[in-house]
Amino acid sequence: MKKLINNPDNVLEDMLQGMLYAHGDYLKRVEGFDVLVRKNSKSEGKVALVSGGGSGHEPAHAGYVGEGMLDAAVCGAVFTSPTPDQVYEAIKAVDNGSGVLLIIKNYTGDIMNFEMAQDMADMEGINVKAVVVNDDVAVEDSLYTAGRRGIAGTVFVHKIVGAKAEEGASLEEVKNVADKVINNVRSMGMALTSCIVPAAGKANFTLAEDEIEIGMGIHGEPGTHREKISTADNISEQLVNKILNDITIENSDEVAVMVNGLSGTPLMELYIVNKKVQEILEEKGIKVHKTFVGEYMTSLEMAGCSVSILKLDDELKGLLGEKADTPAFKVF
Amino acid sequence: MKKLINNPDNVLEDMLQGMLYAHGDYLKRVEGFDVLVRKNSKSEGKVALVSGGGSGHEPAHAGYVGEGMLDAAVCGAVFTSPTPDQVYEAIKAVDNGSGVLLIIKNYTGDIMNFEMAQDMADMEGINVKAVVVNDDVAVEDSLYTAGRRGIAGTVFVHKIVGAKAEEGASLEEVKNVADKVINNVRSMGMALTSCIVPAAGKANFTLAEDEIEIGMGIHGEPGTHREKISTADNISEQLVNKILNDITIENSDEVAVMVNGLSGTPLMELYIVNKKVQEILEEKGIKVHKTFVGEYMTSLEMAGCSVSILKLDDELKGLLGEKADTPAFKVF
Repeated sequence: MKKLINNPDNVLEDMLQGMLYAHGDYLKRVEGFDVLVRKNSKSEGKVALVSGGGSGHEPAHAGYVGEGMLDAAVCGAVFTSPTPDQVYEAIKAVDNGSGVLLIIKNYTGDIMNFEMAQDMADMEGINVKAVVVNDDVAVEDSLYTAGRRGIAGTVFVHKIVGAKAEEGASLEEVKNVADKVINNVRSMGMALTSCIVPAAGKANFTLAEDEIEIGMGIHGEPGTHREKISTADNISEQLVNKILNDITIENSDEVAVMVNGLSGTPLMELYIVNKKVQEILEEKGIKVHKTFVGEYMTSLEMAGCSVSILKLDDELKGLLGEKADTPAFKVF
Repeated sequence: MKKLINNPDNVLEDMLQGMLYAHGDYLKRVEGFDVLVRKNSKSEGKVALVSGGGSGHEPAHAGYVGEGMLDAAVCGAVFTSPTPDQVYEAIKAVDNGSGVLLIIKNYTGDIMNFEMAQDMADMEGINVKAVVVNDDVAVEDSLYTAGRRGIAGTVFVHKIVGAKAEEGASLEEVKNVADKVINNVRSMGMALTSCIVPAAGKANFTLAEDEIEIGMGIHGEPGTHREKISTADNISEQLVNKILNDITIENSDEVAVMVNGLSGTPLMELYIVNKKVQEILEEKGIKVHKTFVGEYMTSLEMAGCSVSILKLDDELKGLLGEKADTPAFKVF
């Protein structure tokens, strides 16, 4: 294991401090907890958004805390669900009486712990609702998941639902938009290499020098199959086709696209993937309204990428274009 | 070699097309050339900024084309200087009569080709000046360089000089600010792994499983030495100390910090490096005005990072905070 860390046991704490040093104008910490909240949160009448999960997916989720996106991110240990008390503290820190929406990625541990925190908050009289993102079309059940996994499509939920909350919508309205985004977004990933959890010190899995895995999860969970590496065009086609087989997108529909790097893959290669993704959509007469290429939901040092496609309507298009000002996602 | 590409000979063209699909609202291509220019450039009375170099360092430099930064990026083949005719086309495409500043990283090929283009433009009566960025304190001469290399500190030049040009300053004023930034910025990098140039198909160099190289260049040029990997704290200390030994920063001075990922290193680790960098500066009484952590000047899939420190005065502080709206760098 060759990593820029001090002690595998301290990676979360060291990272949180490094984030606070870098983004002190956006973020503050809930004292004694691994919870980063928006510096100027608790704005009157705004539904608060809380997300989070295991660490190792940066900039998700703390990088999305700020105006127009999240109010709090709960940061678990690497690839480990945050405990209920951490989530509960996040809820208390950001609730201002208008209610809190939890945005949970579909992993069994996350759901259990976020829901336990929701119960604790309910008992305190805080109005909490939750949505579960399950955008990964690769496999139906997986290592840590019943049903489909939540991956990079979650960032679209943060962005769009954050804009809705910023408008002063009610908790019910905010949740409805979240449900719509979740219903309209699909993702599919692939890996060139494994990642190494610092505490484990060795690769989660191994791929041969000429082998890739299609449909891999962001914790290295098994995908649909392994195959010999081929061209970026061929790989992109597999990802997009699997997505388009899963959701009805009409000829005249508009979509948003995200080509997400898992961390080890250079931006150059993500753009090369994007070229083919756009060509496929163009061929099918699907209009791409907005494209995001970069590292939005990573997997430690894993090389690979995921493609997410979000079907838009006028409301989602509008909200996607609203101002966001967070460390990792900015829209003017 | 395991990469998301189609054909090693086409990576530049495929990437440029993928960038244009993604950032069509920011960028357009100079027909027939590997030059991306600001979509709404040629604004009246503004000095135009042109940068570029070999590809493989994305988002540098095309990701910095837009309001408040560059007007054009010339994209050479991977790790290869763009030819003079390409640079010349970029100059012609963005000059609006107020003159053009070339921002060149200090590599022998880049300097030769950019200066040749400058001569060609001079003969056409275009007023062109040039600055050379040489922020890397690691080694005095290097594989492709006489004097010090230009690395991630270049992004501070783009940002600050771009803001000055946007204000409507003259070519001479813009060049003076560029010289000041270059004079005030220092960087130092390190690598955990090599990168692979697609056309070569094999690693530029090899490091043992427990070995790192300190002072490595962004094309894999040799650094100051190799050593056994130690802690992020120890490594950060080496980088910062080498920088601070090279520039006088007083107790009360303010600086901007960039912790730049070379591509293969996860954001989590960059934040861990940032923690120590900030602690060292804090201990020395140096105030950090603004911090950037992310991938700004990469090196294909190389794992590793660089630290840049820019000494600020009131003018540089002001310009650093001005609006920038580009694909890869946004300031509200």
